Amino acid sequence: MSSPQPVEVWFEFASSYSYLAVMRVEAAARAAGVPLQWRPFLLGPVFLSLGWNDSPFNIYPPKGRYMWRDMARLAAKYDIPFRLPSQFPRNALLAAQVACLGQTQPWIAAFARAAMRANFGEDRDIGQPEVIADILTALALPADTLIAEAQADDNAQALQRQTEQATALGIFGAPTFLVGGEMFWGNDRLEDTLAWACRPA
Amino acid sequence: MSSPQPVEVWFEFASSYSYLAVMRVEAAARAAGVPLQWRPFLLGPVFLSLGWNDSPFNIYPPKGRYMWRDMARLAAKYDIPFRLPSQFPRNALLAAQVACLGQTQPWIAAFARAAMRANFGEDRDIGQPEVIADILTALALPADTLIAEAQADDNAQALQRQTEQATALGIFGAPTFLVGGEMFWGNDRLEDTLAWACRPA
Repeated sequence: MSSPQPVEVWFEFASSYSYLAVMRVEAAARAAGVPLQWRPFLLGPVFLSLGWNDSPFNIYPPKGRYMWRDMARLAAKYDIPFRLPSQFPRNALLAAQVACLGQTQPWIAAFARAAMRANFGEDRDIGQPEVIADILTALALPADTLIAEAQADDNAQALQRQTEQATALGIFGAPTFLVGGEMFWGNDRLEDTLAWACRPA
Repeated sequence: MSSPQPVEVWFEFASSYSYLAVMRVEAAARAAGVPLQWRPFLLGPVFLSLGWNDSPFNIYPPKGRYMWRDMARLAAKYDIPFRLPSQFPRNALLAAQVACLGQTQPWIAAFARAAMRANFGEDRDIGQPEVIADILTALALPADTLIAEAQADDNAQALQRQTEQATALGIFGAPTFLVGGEMFWGNDRLEDTLAWACRPA
């Protein structure tokens, strides 16, 4: 039996369906024996490259109305907390910078879940540094140090490069899962992604 | 135990994901004891109302490239024939008119599957009346009569009204399933739709 291939998890903290995927992916991947590689990025520049200067859920109101109903139903199905955010999309730059800084650290999954839950489960403004600091502190991490490092030029540029890489890879939304050259888009594809990663070589 | 609610199946013959849903829905609904109400419509006017003069899969090339790969994978998973259409989207007006004429007839599901399979499984041009005639004849239906009735003013207008109703209902893509006031979008939501239809009243 060959080992499962690693899965890259491309996600954005302002993305509603990324929330559902981020809350589910670590447990599902562990159960399947699939290693994860976290890839936070910014959807804004990706959307701009498609000609959208806002979330398509805002640009196309019928899609947006449907998405929020779909989110509520899916969150109930998965037993994930959900509260309609009072602002959408939220500024997720700092959260993404922190996640980029920590994307190979043991705390990345817990941080990603906590920040996404703050946005979509608790209606907290993750664009506020105090909120990110609270989240880091609750994880027993040195909030001030990490936030300073996350905002430093090196790391800010690393996030920009990762975002450019997303566009170069043909990513057009989030979450997106990559397994080798195979792309799967959307929370709906998490199970198919893990099955693909476990296919015999 | 209460009876399952009926499910309206809104679909378009030129829509790739409608193909997967149309091929699966009758057997899945029968297994769940859910009655179906077929609602063929035209995506073109719906897309125009969103500002798109073509399929979004053509307007946004990364989405289109992904969709075709996703289609191939899903067709393999469901064991549904798939062949990349040499033209997309195809003119599906006549197919939709025939389906609208027959949407309460016993042959609707078989016709819908055959015409969708012609488009996405066999790369046949369903915009050609001969192709639609072939499909009807293979179902032992009177092709010439049905095509003439389908194109007559009364039925052509019925399809137009159904398409206007789709927009009025907030439908923005296909397939869309409606259960009472509950909307589910996409082949991915077929199972959730049937589960919803079977919820206790």
